[in-house]
Amino acid sequence: MSDSATTLADLREIVRRFVEERDWRQFHSPKNLSMSLAIEAAELMEHFQWIDVAESRRVADDPAKVAGVGEEIADVLCYLLALANELDIDLSTALRDTMVKNAQKYPAELSRGRFDPPTTS
Amino acid sequence: MSDSATTLADLREIVRRFVEERDWRQFHSPKNLSMSLAIEAAELMEHFQWIDVAESRRVADDPAKVAGVGEEIADVLCYLLALANELDIDLSTALRDTMVKNAQKYPAELSRGRFDPPTTS
Amino acid sequence: MSDSATTLADLREIVRRFVEERDWRQFHSPKNLSMSLAIEAAELMEHFQWIDVAESRRVADDPAKVAGVGEEIADVLCYLLALANELDIDLSTALRDTMVKNAQKYPAELSRGRFDPPTTS
Amino acid sequence: MSDSATTLADLREIVRRFVEERDWRQFHSPKNLSMSLAIEAAELMEHFQWIDVAESRRVADDPAKVAGVGEEIADVLCYLLALANELDIDLSTALRDTMVKNAQKYPAELSRGRFDPPTTS
Repeated sequence: MSDSATTLADLREIVRRFVEERDWRQFHSPKNLSMSLAIEAAELMEHFQWIDVAESRRVADDPAKVAGVGEEIADVLCYLLALANELDIDLSTALRDTMVKNAQKYPAELSRGRFDPPTTS
Repeated sequence: MSDSATTLADLREIVRRFVEERDWRQFHSPKNLSMSLAIEAAELMEHFQWIDVAESRRVADDPAKVAGVGEEIADVLCYLLALANELDIDLSTALRDTMVKNAQKYPAELSRGRFDPPTTS
Repeated sequence: MSDSATTLADLREIVRRFVEERDWRQFHSPKNLSMSLAIEAAELMEHFQWIDVAESRRVADDPAKVAGVGEEIADVLCYLLALANELDIDLSTALRDTMVKNAQKYPAELSRGRFDPPTTS
Repeated sequence: MSDSATTLADLREIVRRFVEERDWRQFHSPKNLSMSLAIEAAELMEHFQWIDVAESRRVADDPAKVAGVGEEIADVLCYLLALANELDIDLSTALRDTMVKNAQKYPAELSRGRFDPPTTS
């Protein structure tokens, strides 16, 4: 029941079953799911819309606010899993591949404390 | 190396280490991460921007297109994991909690084949 | 009271006065306004989230639906005007400049009926 | 050539002609345009993704950065005008209607310096 004991496949299966029990794959085209994911991402942003960057860090200390944010993150994750299901994408492989590319684009020693990629000279 | 053998905690740890090696937590306020997640979600949508719903389903049959979409999904997932790390949110619990609420809002027998919640009368 | 008799400056002034009467410029940093604009854009998308491309065209024939969409478009426009006010950007000039660039990127004769830029050979 | 001398109808006509010369109305379904608008809104956010709220205000003093932001705002505006064209929505009326509702939701005297709607008691 926690992230250290739950595989990606476990969560994918929860979403897959929910969708199939409602015959919702007819709505779950990749186009629609990508829109849905973006809509939920915007709802997540609403929690941080008017507050400062520093204040957004203090949300971590407020259990009620963390719970609210957690619900929106779960909605984003739900559509992300549904999209991975529709396109049969292995998320663990995709994430690892991306992190390898990111490590090449942002070498640790050159990227410490700067968010833009180092210029090659 | 695949979703059936990878826990959420495994992926969270990959992202956590990447961020710490670059001293990037200074940029990873929840406000900034929520923007980043929405930005990546928009890049994901670009793959489906001008095509029809039916055509977006056929993306599943085109390995090159699936790979492109997979990269964007991984970018979304990366920021989602980073945000969960910053706010110490257990994603498996949040996802399961959300699905319980969704099951109440959309009872399977009343929601079959319709995407709007059933009206209570 | 209509688009043929209203200048961009007229609408900017409506938003500027509204913001100043509430002392809201303190919240209207460009960062916050860009988030707000994206959030409203997502609410606009919600109207078309689950329907097909063809069905979304038929929204034009349903006055109630057009009114609902119009409210969301107005919300997007409101933040767009507020951001132009904060950064002192002339929207008419920016729009015309962009259309000149678009015309170079998508020459009419080569772009008829295709949405991707023509390849140069 | 500036916002005080340009009507909304003038800009709508620029976009309408551009779209018709390329026979692009076939792609400009409201669903696709709403996605496009959200995608451009995300590109606008990128300019403010990693900087602080205060730093985003200082963008106003940097002509090169303002120009970059102006291009993204123009892209958002372009799709907003295209969507208004497709759905035959008068933007000036929609904006004014929205501001009337906003003035009721956020009465000036009760909303000074606070961004959440006043509670009624």
